[in-house]
Amino acid sequence: MHRFFAPDIAETLTLPEQESQHAVRVLRLAEGDEIEVVDGKGNLYLCRIALAHSKRCGVEITGRTAVPNHWQGKIIVAVAPTKNLDRMEWMAEKATEMGVDRIIPLLCRHSERKELKTERLMKILVSAMKQSLKATLPQLDEMTPIARVLTDASLPRQRFVAYCDAATERRQFEQCYSLEEDVVIMIGPEGDFSPEEVELAVANGFVPVTFGESRLRTETAAMYAVAACHALKQK
Amino acid sequence: MHRFFAPDIAETLTLPEQESQHAVRVLRLAEGDEIEVVDGKGNLYLCRIALAHSKRCGVEITGRTAVPNHWQGKIIVAVAPTKNLDRMEWMAEKATEMGVDRIIPLLCRHSERKELKTERLMKILVSAMKQSLKATLPQLDEMTPIARVLTDASLPRQRFVAYCDAATERRQFEQCYSLEEDVVIMIGPEGDFSPEEVELAVANGFVPVTFGESRLRTETAAMYAVAACHALKQK
Repeated sequence: MHRFFAPDIAETLTLPEQESQHAVRVLRLAEGDEIEVVDGKGNLYLCRIALAHSKRCGVEITGRTAVPNHWQGKIIVAVAPTKNLDRMEWMAEKATEMGVDRIIPLLCRHSERKELKTERLMKILVSAMKQSLKATLPQLDEMTPIARVLTDASLPRQRFVAYCDAATERRQFEQCYSLEEDVVIMIGPEGDFSPEEVELAVANGFVPVTFGESRLRTETAAMYAVAACHALKQK
Repeated sequence: MHRFFAPDIAETLTLPEQESQHAVRVLRLAEGDEIEVVDGKGNLYLCRIALAHSKRCGVEITGRTAVPNHWQGKIIVAVAPTKNLDRMEWMAEKATEMGVDRIIPLLCRHSERKELKTERLMKILVSAMKQSLKATLPQLDEMTPIARVLTDASLPRQRFVAYCDAATERRQFEQCYSLEEDVVIMIGPEGDFSPEEVELAVANGFVPVTFGESRLRTETAAMYAVAACHALKQK
């Protein structure tokens, strides 16, 4: 069955314009057809099209299922967007498919990309959420200076900073990740974190970790981190 | 130090044309400059440029280090190339960065892509090998019909087929992967394996597995499989 995204479906009983267009114009769905609608907050609605309007497609809700994320312990990645935006977008797509709770685009001293439009990324997250049969949209923050992330007391206590510099003492991520606790993993830009950033991170409870002997690109490290969390949880 | 790829460096003492061009034209390296050269077979050579020729850059070898892959137990993925070639290329890049021994492009009944030029992919593997500081190039096979993979007795005995159809009894991959043994993991095309393909796979010792509750795209599943192997090995 076709799946649509409508954050306020329970209140509006109407698909957003783009989703309406896709349903009615592209897929040529008609009144009476059944569709699935997720609200990005963990709910999956079974709906029947009541008004096949190509801008404001109206629906009748025939059922609701709670579809919480299937993993225990939130996974938050704070990652410096790559200079090449494609790489960031792929990472966000893959992380969402595998399962991530929140992505914080990180502004670091060595960041090659200082600005980020989250609108386009958001669309990718929506599509990846639908694709991977989830009903919860990851939280996507605006670009956030690292200092603000480091001192954000609302972030989980289990916090890691993935750092490339082998001169710093680092633990093996897989060996210190506590599976059921919420976690935030920080991943630096192409030029890595500055030593001062790492120092400040450590002072704020971030444990320096490595993902192994391969030197991973920023977006690969972020994808690996998310994959590793799930692999270890599913072991 | 700059790193180059030259499969026959020990015999030829010369960089291939493209690498010569990059060294001499782009990076403007000159006689006497030191470079690193990997041969894709696990050797890292320390070299000094002896002849800064932009097509046949000559070198003198001053040292050799064996750099075997850092993981135990080969990781082989047999994956159906995606319709969108970009997705396959990203997957191959990421798998190489994280560490993979062999990639077998799989031709299945539901494959949307029936042909694959491996030349371009090979360049991506070379670049990802250099980027991630490895000295071994993954083996990249030509497009191979699934029947030939299924009956290839030279493949490892630990064999899995990742299958989306929840109606089939599947084990959780992370719970049955034996870390130190070589492994081959088969991942199907966008339209999944046909039931006959899965049946034949099972008859040939492939264990049907799932990677969890998220429905992953083909290339995400392949990347996840490689990441999961490393995460579990590094635990």
